[in-house]
Amino acid sequence: MSFQISAEFIADSNRALEADLARDYEALGLRLARQGIDIEALTQRAQAFALAVPSWGVGTGGTRFARFPGQGEPRGVHEKLEDCYTIQQLSRVTPTVSLHFPWDRPSDVAALREQAVVFGLGFDAVNSNTFQDAAQQPYSYKHGSLTHNNLSVRQQAIEHNIECIRLGQQLGSRALTVWIGDGANFPGQHNLRQALERYLGSMWEIYAKLPDEWLLFIEHKLFEPSFYATTVADWGTSFACANELGPKAKCLVDLGHHAPNTNIEMIVARLVQFKKLAGFHFNDSKYGDDDLDSGSINPFQLFLVFNELVDAELRESGRFQPAYMLDQSHNVTDPIESLIGSAIEVQRAYVQASLVDRRALLGYQSDDDALMSARTLKRAYNTDVTPILDMARLRSGGALDPIACYRASGYRKQKASERPSVAGAGGSGIV
Amino acid sequence: MSFQISAEFIADSNRALEADLARDYEALGLRLARQGIDIEALTQRAQAFALAVPSWGVGTGGTRFARFPGQGEPRGVHEKLEDCYTIQQLSRVTPTVSLHFPWDRPSDVAALREQAVVFGLGFDAVNSNTFQDAAQQPYSYKHGSLTHNNLSVRQQAIEHNIECIRLGQQLGSRALTVWIGDGANFPGQHNLRQALERYLGSMWEIYAKLPDEWLLFIEHKLFEPSFYATTVADWGTSFACANELGPKAKCLVDLGHHAPNTNIEMIVARLVQFKKLAGFHFNDSKYGDDDLDSGSINPFQLFLVFNELVDAELRESGRFQPAYMLDQSHNVTDPIESLIGSAIEVQRAYVQASLVDRRALLGYQSDDDALMSARTLKRAYNTDVTPILDMARLRSGGALDPIACYRASGYRKQKASERPSVAGAGGSGIV
Amino acid sequence: MSFQISAEFIADSNRALEADLARDYEALGLRLARQGIDIEALTQRAQAFALAVPSWGVGTGGTRFARFPGQGEPRGVHEKLEDCYTIQQLSRVTPTVSLHFPWDRPSDVAALREQAVVFGLGFDAVNSNTFQDAAQQPYSYKHGSLTHNNLSVRQQAIEHNIECIRLGQQLGSRALTVWIGDGANFPGQHNLRQALERYLGSMWEIYAKLPDEWLLFIEHKLFEPSFYATTVADWGTSFACANELGPKAKCLVDLGHHAPNTNIEMIVARLVQFKKLAGFHFNDSKYGDDDLDSGSINPFQLFLVFNELVDAELRESGRFQPAYMLDQSHNVTDPIESLIGSAIEVQRAYVQASLVDRRALLGYQSDDDALMSARTLKRAYNTDVTPILDMARLRSGGALDPIACYRASGYRKQKASERPSVAGAGGSGIV
Amino acid sequence: MSFQISAEFIADSNRALEADLARDYEALGLRLARQGIDIEALTQRAQAFALAVPSWGVGTGGTRFARFPGQGEPRGVHEKLEDCYTIQQLSRVTPTVSLHFPWDRPSDVAALREQAVVFGLGFDAVNSNTFQDAAQQPYSYKHGSLTHNNLSVRQQAIEHNIECIRLGQQLGSRALTVWIGDGANFPGQHNLRQALERYLGSMWEIYAKLPDEWLLFIEHKLFEPSFYATTVADWGTSFACANELGPKAKCLVDLGHHAPNTNIEMIVARLVQFKKLAGFHFNDSKYGDDDLDSGSINPFQLFLVFNELVDAELRESGRFQPAYMLDQSHNVTDPIESLIGSAIEVQRAYVQASLVDRRALLGYQSDDDALMSARTLKRAYNTDVTPILDMARLRSGGALDPIACYRASGYRKQKASERPSVAGAGGSGIV
Repeated sequence: MSFQISAEFIADSNRALEADLARDYEALGLRLARQGIDIEALTQRAQAFALAVPSWGVGTGGTRFARFPGQGEPRGVHEKLEDCYTIQQLSRVTPTVSLHFPWDRPSDVAALREQAVVFGLGFDAVNSNTFQDAAQQPYSYKHGSLTHNNLSVRQQAIEHNIECIRLGQQLGSRALTVWIGDGANFPGQHNLRQALERYLGSMWEIYAKLPDEWLLFIEHKLFEPSFYATTVADWGTSFACANELGPKAKCLVDLGHHAPNTNIEMIVARLVQFKKLAGFHFNDSKYGDDDLDSGSINPFQLFLVFNELVDAELRESGRFQPAYMLDQSHNVTDPIESLIGSAIEVQRAYVQASLVDRRALLGYQSDDDALMSARTLKRAYNTDVTPILDMARLRSGGALDPIACYRASGYRKQKASERPSVAGAGGSGIV
Repeated sequence: MSFQISAEFIADSNRALEADLARDYEALGLRLARQGIDIEALTQRAQAFALAVPSWGVGTGGTRFARFPGQGEPRGVHEKLEDCYTIQQLSRVTPTVSLHFPWDRPSDVAALREQAVVFGLGFDAVNSNTFQDAAQQPYSYKHGSLTHNNLSVRQQAIEHNIECIRLGQQLGSRALTVWIGDGANFPGQHNLRQALERYLGSMWEIYAKLPDEWLLFIEHKLFEPSFYATTVADWGTSFACANELGPKAKCLVDLGHHAPNTNIEMIVARLVQFKKLAGFHFNDSKYGDDDLDSGSINPFQLFLVFNELVDAELRESGRFQPAYMLDQSHNVTDPIESLIGSAIEVQRAYVQASLVDRRALLGYQSDDDALMSARTLKRAYNTDVTPILDMARLRSGGALDPIACYRASGYRKQKASERPSVAGAGGSGIV
Repeated sequence: MSFQISAEFIADSNRALEADLARDYEALGLRLARQGIDIEALTQRAQAFALAVPSWGVGTGGTRFARFPGQGEPRGVHEKLEDCYTIQQLSRVTPTVSLHFPWDRPSDVAALREQAVVFGLGFDAVNSNTFQDAAQQPYSYKHGSLTHNNLSVRQQAIEHNIECIRLGQQLGSRALTVWIGDGANFPGQHNLRQALERYLGSMWEIYAKLPDEWLLFIEHKLFEPSFYATTVADWGTSFACANELGPKAKCLVDLGHHAPNTNIEMIVARLVQFKKLAGFHFNDSKYGDDDLDSGSINPFQLFLVFNELVDAELRESGRFQPAYMLDQSHNVTDPIESLIGSAIEVQRAYVQASLVDRRALLGYQSDDDALMSARTLKRAYNTDVTPILDMARLRSGGALDPIACYRASGYRKQKASERPSVAGAGGSGIV
Repeated sequence: MSFQISAEFIADSNRALEADLARDYEALGLRLARQGIDIEALTQRAQAFALAVPSWGVGTGGTRFARFPGQGEPRGVHEKLEDCYTIQQLSRVTPTVSLHFPWDRPSDVAALREQAVVFGLGFDAVNSNTFQDAAQQPYSYKHGSLTHNNLSVRQQAIEHNIECIRLGQQLGSRALTVWIGDGANFPGQHNLRQALERYLGSMWEIYAKLPDEWLLFIEHKLFEPSFYATTVADWGTSFACANELGPKAKCLVDLGHHAPNTNIEMIVARLVQFKKLAGFHFNDSKYGDDDLDSGSINPFQLFLVFNELVDAELRESGRFQPAYMLDQSHNVTDPIESLIGSAIEVQRAYVQASLVDRRALLGYQSDDDALMSARTLKRAYNTDVTPILDMARLRSGGALDPIACYRASGYRKQKASERPSVAGAGGSGIV
């Protein structure tokens, strides 16, 4: 039997921290009450918040220069699920897992579904992979996949995506995320328009195979692995394609996939307005698709994204349900720790955004009072909502200090002995 | 009578250069013939190429820090037209002028039309201005124009745009370009979605007033004068709005209005594909909306833009007619010289792009031969087409060395005495 | 007699807020005590913190497109000083003013000094201006000032800087800040090396005239008003020049003067290490030199800058005294409100950075524990130190809610009647 | 015996092209003569131009997402040298090779030296590698190398660098290039100053071991593999460190290692002025360290870099000898083809820059004639110097159409059979 952290261990580790939390929670509650805010309502919102963990995130990531593996890394989808369960156990905000095929293709689908049930985990969007060549694959994606000028290559990529849908159906997923690295490294390598025409042709075939309740998420990215022209490079292209494909096609926003200086929260507002926001791949970055821990570089930007999302939630009432997922590469930390911490940082931004006094804000906006409008957001942002996040976690059965609890549990050491590293397996650096 | 350069003066100045041109043209013709290219067909293409000069470009520009005026600057629309005529006389690629209201609002429309006829000039798209407060204007645009939350402000801005259409009709224009600086300097200042909803509401009213043959050009810009969130900031927003408005609304691309690292030629390809390319404001830049002379910073990018345009021209045959305009700010040069030079650089990119062996390129692309695809473009780009440009200018009645001819003509000195500078008029720095 | 807000009015406006502050301060004090932090020591640090207000910041700013003036703008240096006094009265963190010549050249130096004494204000670094042409100036700076290839122009610019030192001496300043816009808009316009050689030649002459206690601050900027190559464009050039000039020359960091994606806190660390950090011009930005309110766009970056400064303060003990100044352009807000708010945001970052548990941090860094290192910073940053800032302000005689107090005082309306706007004075847009 | 392209094959392949070249060369010669330029002097300059090929460049590169290997890739340093020889044979501008240890550590140094002699190749700067963990290495570089807080790790990295010097001495190199990926992915992970202090401490030990004639090249890079703070991130840091270390330490410029919008030619001018320019790693890029073929994205920038270098060459006369190397990653092309093409593009920029009329340029600069200054550069840049490059290659024994000749030779197919791919060797993606 593989090692798991027990509920008792978590409860024990919480005990010493509960009194201080009670005091801090009460003090914050009084302060918020003076602003007319009910802390209990916020705590319930925090408890209801959920985001998916990417299966590939629990392994150590790397760069094209190197990958420095950690100890006890999961060697297959079942071990990945164990780690995802641990993240959910401690954080209580990550009840679902997003799988990536063929990496996570199970030999026994029923067994995987079963394991998820035992862990209380669900499956979020499934992800296809046509940016690498799988073993035994007849055609290479070196020069493209869904956009390749050779019909056979495109057909292979289309069929892989359809297989992802089929696997996802068996697991209870309801969306397919398509990210391709297709593009050109040289001016002239692609006829830019023909490449997108072929992309749309391929996507129509995939779209046609979507089950009734399913959505198709288009993920754009400015650059990497293509360095001159990426076929689906920006939200404009993503949006135009989603329009061409139909109502089940929507645009997924990864926070690290934009040009420098881009106002991402405005892209969110635009996609909401035009009914095309699929959801998010959360992470943080300073330069490119750095895939750093969410909220670690620009936490105010994360808050501003959620400011749009909470605004949309209020305007759209129940119909607004974007998909939230972490998508990070953990090169120098224990991935489990980074994912726990990041999930809570995303939750923090959501709670802070829920604090915004939107009636006052609207008034200031109507009065052209830029200063007080800005201060209304900053007041919410400056509020230290840690006690709310802690209380939500406590009430949901998670750990008050999840990192400390995780470390004290010895989980990683246990896994290091359960999962001996495979000789030569370290080299890939693939995220 | 105001001073003009005579056709004889130009012809005289050309004489000494014609023999060398004949030799260079012949040598290039032989070289191109070896590639199966007919130099005469290219020269005819060069002669047929045309772009508009912006009326505001003939004055010295400035920055928010200062404006350093030059001598003999035009003091009104009639003097601007004189300068535009000089540019066309010497370059023979700028047969039209783009006006900006209320700056260029004529006291006597018929007189302006008459002057243009005498000069052989036509009027390109007209431009509205709601980023400045005009004297006697009831409402200020400090906090927005077409997006303002106050209906009266929006109405004022809408009516100004409708007046621009009316003036344009009287002058023979067929398009209205709408660029607004509306946006926010602070997170929270705008509800990002409501701002765009108001924008669309305003634009619908303007769109409804478009005469039959007219088009509405939407110009986006990443930032400046708004520094946090610009309402129409990127091609995605421009495209979504053009879609909402209808078939007469199209997207105008200014080369300096994008985020760092943006692949502009790909935006061109996308807008062509989705039938929404209005045309261009040509200039060059290194940092932001620097409004430098076309081709002065990244001439290969300009070539790649025209590579898309020539490709589109071939695919769309006669139906592809984007509007080409220069839009530059000349802070340290004589504006007439910069506009002449820039017009010819744009023409150079067009001729170079016309040299691309598109059949060979398609073959290389089909073979996944990235290297030879790239070299096919570079071969065209590396060709020094100066003799073709010179011959086209000579045949069309322009100057072989337009800058030298302009300087020798004494035009600027003549204007300095004809147009004494108005005391205190220098301060605006507005471009 | 001109209107001033009275101490009584401030005290009255504070009264209703004091009880809540006492409660919040106590709760925060208890929480910090659990971390071994003495809230009183922090409050004293907050009270001791000071930064300068720029005289030009109290007027409404603008862009090259337009300036939309506000009401009651100061019409000269004496009225600017009134506004600076109001900012200091309410915020109690801005005891000094930084003047800009020739804009602020007083007709009567003694009277200006006297006014400052009455207001309890001191004078920070003085700023020269060679990016504009002053009336009656023999030579234009259109093509450069300290770098101009004409010796007479350089000499005029050098003498202006020396005059600034002389004026500063009479006012009690101890530093000269030199920012020039010199550079090129075209490749080839400057010989890049010769331009810097001439700059150094000019700066040596200015440096030679520095009084004993004075420092010379070099301010670099990536672009604007020059758009291809700015002579002093980056910290590397600034640093090399400061090295050439000698120990009194140091490098000033403006937060908005860097390339996209630049890690500014690392530049701060480098300048500290190599003994060349002069100080700061604080503001915030998203695109270029946007000059937005400090902390309004990326507050975590501001915290990280102060994290370096507090680290340096501890390592260098008493010898570390960088100059802090706001440098913002207020285009859509009341400048007094923006400056008050911004001063407090800078103070907030300083107090948050003072909260970092540096002993624990060093331990995590030594253990290669990236996650806990990062969390140690975030824990300090997430702490809502508003009660400390408020208490510091209260104890120093400022306003608990400075914006509300300012608005209630009617200051702006009073000034609007005291300072009727000068006809035609509005156009400049100069920041 | 391994396959090589014979001199006869090259000569044969040239024969059909020589007559056209003679015509084009003559026409260009006449045209240049009119400008007072001697084409023969330029051709000799082109023949004298040389740059090094990186040993790692002849293998197919990749990204963190995937590597798609080509056929016949070299499996060790001897096979890499074969490919470098082929590049030099055909291009005649790459007489030296730059090795990277431990990748290229020879089992028999004498045999490697011998092979180079046979090929007529020399060895340029040697490169150390502390961004990957080598097999059997006692300490990991996961958390740093020369900056690591553990002395043992630093010592291991220092000793590796000293070993590189020793190997380089045996091979006839005269410089060591040090690039480290050290840095932080999280704010707080590093004490930014301590990290650089440790770096300098390590570098002093390496510097102390430099043989008399050797130089130490410091290579900076903005980001990747570190994504928050890279210890040697910009030219300012590189320059400060080179100053600290002494006269043998100089700064190496890789064209892809800068922030967006950086003016690289100005950095070149600064390093020349302050006597710290080591040399270049040439490549091209649009987004980050894209490592694309030189001149493929922004050829005008490459020309402007050489404009500075030719200017420096004239000012410094014989003492100016920067090291030139290609450093590219070839993900979708045959690396040999890309390196041949890139070497010639760099040579093209050098010849174009040699065409600039520097006396006229100085005159325009002195007259503040920005327009004619810019046109003086553009006139040289627009000149199609292909006939000069071709003639230089022909006279030096290279191929007139090197790509066509290479393809016709069957080299790659020969190597594919000589060098069967090693099973499982494909995964690394390391560049």
